[in-house]
Amino acid sequence: MAMVILSDWLAAQLDKHSAEPAYRQLLQLMQQAILTGRLAPGTKLPSSRTLAGDLGVARNTVLHVYDQLSAEGYVISSTGSGTYVADTRPDSAAVNPAANAEGAAGNAPDEAAGEPARETCPRGDMSKRGQRLIDQAGVSAKQWGAFMPGVPDVAEFPARTWSRLQARLWKSANHGLLTYAPGGGYRPLRRALSDYLRVARSVRCTPEQIIITTGIHQSMDLAVRLLADVGDRAWVEEPCYWGARSVLQSSGLTLAPIPVDDEGLNPREADLREPPRIALVTPSHQYPLGMVMSLARRRMLLEYARQHKVWIVEDDYDSEFRYGSRPLASLQGLDDSDRVIYVGSLGKLLFPGLRIGYMVVPERLAATFRTGVAELYREGQLMQQAVLAEFIMDGYLTSHVRRMRTLYGERRQLLIDAVTQHFGDALPVMGDEAGLHFVLGLPEDADDRAITAAAFEAGVIVRPLTAYYSTRQQHQGLLTGYACVPHDEIAPAFATLAQVIETHAFAQPRKRRRVG
Amino acid sequence: MAMVILSDWLAAQLDKHSAEPAYRQLLQLMQQAILTGRLAPGTKLPSSRTLAGDLGVARNTVLHVYDQLSAEGYVISSTGSGTYVADTRPDSAAVNPAANAEGAAGNAPDEAAGEPARETCPRGDMSKRGQRLIDQAGVSAKQWGAFMPGVPDVAEFPARTWSRLQARLWKSANHGLLTYAPGGGYRPLRRALSDYLRVARSVRCTPEQIIITTGIHQSMDLAVRLLADVGDRAWVEEPCYWGARSVLQSSGLTLAPIPVDDEGLNPREADLREPPRIALVTPSHQYPLGMVMSLARRRMLLEYARQHKVWIVEDDYDSEFRYGSRPLASLQGLDDSDRVIYVGSLGKLLFPGLRIGYMVVPERLAATFRTGVAELYREGQLMQQAVLAEFIMDGYLTSHVRRMRTLYGERRQLLIDAVTQHFGDALPVMGDEAGLHFVLGLPEDADDRAITAAAFEAGVIVRPLTAYYSTRQQHQGLLTGYACVPHDEIAPAFATLAQVIETHAFAQPRKRRRVG
Repeated sequence: MAMVILSDWLAAQLDKHSAEPAYRQLLQLMQQAILTGRLAPGTKLPSSRTLAGDLGVARNTVLHVYDQLSAEGYVISSTGSGTYVADTRPDSAAVNPAANAEGAAGNAPDEAAGEPARETCPRGDMSKRGQRLIDQAGVSAKQWGAFMPGVPDVAEFPARTWSRLQARLWKSANHGLLTYAPGGGYRPLRRALSDYLRVARSVRCTPEQIIITTGIHQSMDLAVRLLADVGDRAWVEEPCYWGARSVLQSSGLTLAPIPVDDEGLNPREADLREPPRIALVTPSHQYPLGMVMSLARRRMLLEYARQHKVWIVEDDYDSEFRYGSRPLASLQGLDDSDRVIYVGSLGKLLFPGLRIGYMVVPERLAATFRTGVAELYREGQLMQQAVLAEFIMDGYLTSHVRRMRTLYGERRQLLIDAVTQHFGDALPVMGDEAGLHFVLGLPEDADDRAITAAAFEAGVIVRPLTAYYSTRQQHQGLLTGYACVPHDEIAPAFATLAQVIETHAFAQPRKRRRVG
Repeated sequence: MAMVILSDWLAAQLDKHSAEPAYRQLLQLMQQAILTGRLAPGTKLPSSRTLAGDLGVARNTVLHVYDQLSAEGYVISSTGSGTYVADTRPDSAAVNPAANAEGAAGNAPDEAAGEPARETCPRGDMSKRGQRLIDQAGVSAKQWGAFMPGVPDVAEFPARTWSRLQARLWKSANHGLLTYAPGGGYRPLRRALSDYLRVARSVRCTPEQIIITTGIHQSMDLAVRLLADVGDRAWVEEPCYWGARSVLQSSGLTLAPIPVDDEGLNPREADLREPPRIALVTPSHQYPLGMVMSLARRRMLLEYARQHKVWIVEDDYDSEFRYGSRPLASLQGLDDSDRVIYVGSLGKLLFPGLRIGYMVVPERLAATFRTGVAELYREGQLMQQAVLAEFIMDGYLTSHVRRMRTLYGERRQLLIDAVTQHFGDALPVMGDEAGLHFVLGLPEDADDRAITAAAFEAGVIVRPLTAYYSTRQQHQGLLTGYACVPHDEIAPAFATLAQVIETHAFAQPRKRRRVG
């Protein structure tokens, strides 16, 4: 492109009425001209004075554009001899030595000619583990509403108290709270948590053994990466939490689904013959079915772990919300061989968006885990950890949990009443009296995924139990959460759900039992 | 243990003056007695009335203890016939079928007899990748002080503004901000970031292409897991950021260190012959050396990636802080083949503890990445994202960055002045005029790790350049950060560092050049 044509082309493209300054427009136009070859390598650019005159812009504007083009390597300026377009075209031989060396066609293959279409579609773009992760994804697009399982009522969270503590801490101008966190997290929070866990969960620990994380996912991820290698075997409960499966699989572990019965994890002899590296369990409240692991099974698992050097990851899920009996002690508290990594989270107690969790690791691993968490995740959020520490130390955590336990207990009962009213005892409510959801059993010939989809259409969220299994030994059911549903919305929302279930689960119209 | 002995033992152990309630003490004592075998399976417990009388505690206390023991499976109660200790001993055969089936010694191996000691030491506990992660850990125990590299001055952060925006948002009681985040993050923040990146970094993107993460580590982790499988090859710059190496390796990737020269990444022909799955680069400001990738190299890399379907992960490190020329446009903005995943973070602009980063992915991958981030990390922190969105939209980000650019530029100059004053041109200051640190080159026979350790002893933090290499082609130098050091502390702190360098780096006492 000769210089005069360049000036003409630029003049035609420049929009003097645009909000975009002339400098930016001119810079982008010239970059574009160089990248597309419109301005060939070696071309001498007009002097800044000439170009400014041709375009009717300030000379300084052109000078700045030339400086920037030079700084970015688009042009080369040499004092006295002018400014030239640099040769930055990739050398086909340099980037494709294989084709060259083998004396093949020599040029890069033309994508338009012959590349199969699937190569450029998202499936081909992804890794195998990425594809599996997305194909099996359990995460939901909606996070709120009747009967979203596993979500606490955030409207009941004492936001004003939290905000007040937060404002006070920001005002104190403790700059150390704004930097990266040294491994393990904010020390007063670790002390507050170790006190809390000792008393509430019979966990044996010192603050040194506590590692603050962003939640269960990160805790599991850290344990898996520090303790297990690619190809190692991990026991997971069948059924289990989808997130656990995703985290373990994407770190390269081979999952062995172990059946559960009404005493919890129930490994078969064939399972026992192949000791895993890691066993992930939810002894307090099996997720999603809700039973409690019996003491006998707990002792069996601990003894097996001791003998075979298995790491047990105890996810102490939902242990705080029990409506009948007192919460059971943790598995960690029974462990004399230091084989248990205890993990928990504050999301369900306070609000899910908080993203603060913790793990309790055996003393001899504590320093390793502190380094590991800092190295892998470069954690921070000390300010928020400090707010939480005050919240706990001032007694707000305990009183909030106590209040929520009453509230959720009432909601659970209201939902059970609604189930009974609609279905009598035709559909069992499964699991212990605990947690934020229960599983509503369905006839084995029902299709819980179809029911979930139809319920979603009707405005009610549930989760299909079959989605939590990884083998074909599945049971039909619906994970039904009551915690985030105000009392007076429970019956009407369940009426909607009941209608969907009636339509889908019972081939024959059932004689409905109406109580009251 | 006969009943009368049980009562005696319990009475001896109970401490009535303890702050611990009798209920808790008694529960723990009986659990302990059952777990240790002091109370054998099948033993009938005394009636609650008898035991309460023997111990001098309320009968209700004993009843509650028995209830809890029963709930936890320690005892079995049957109406009318009393309460018995349950048999929860693990069955050795059940937990060790292999030993059994092979007719081996039959009993579990006695750990005291013959197990090699290293089996129980932390090294044996860990995975190979965990061990490597910890052995190579680059993370520092200290996060603040002269001359910590890569840390902004958090004392300059407009905390009052932030706190005010935060208080207002908490007051608005938008409960949706307390739940889990739907994939991708808070939408107004994504819009604000896409506007910012388009203007400031010439990134081509819509808000849909933006995924909010907790920072560079999570962004890299997500890209690696979704796009690369275990054993896949990844190019990393040599030298590079330790955190990148750790994240990639612990996800099972094989790292290929690619040399850099003064134009950035400089793959050799042998490197080009084996196209990687992922190439991780820092084109704006090579980390840690500080040069800018030339336009020619950028175009070469993009063309190579297009031909060989390589994913480029562009870490746009330190791009906002340039003291000489304007910041260069992003690599992503030059990419016509959708091969670039652009990652950035706000930690260095605002404060490191914030933990908000972002990635810009090609349009066709956006939905996949939104699902992936939710599935793998179960993210939240919408409240904080909302605060940041307002902070950006109200113009505070731009004005803060502008102010910090001036401040850090001055500090950089002060530190360079101090270097010149002490060493003349004996020690080169490497890298472009940008970022929060520079590399102070050392004589090649110096030991930068020994100097770092000695400086730390003397109260000054630096990082050894050799720690950033993974091959033996290393250069000696010190990563020296100036951003977080107040102006008047720079000269005195450097005087301390200079003394350490004099002692360690120069075998012969050098004739010192004193200017001024």
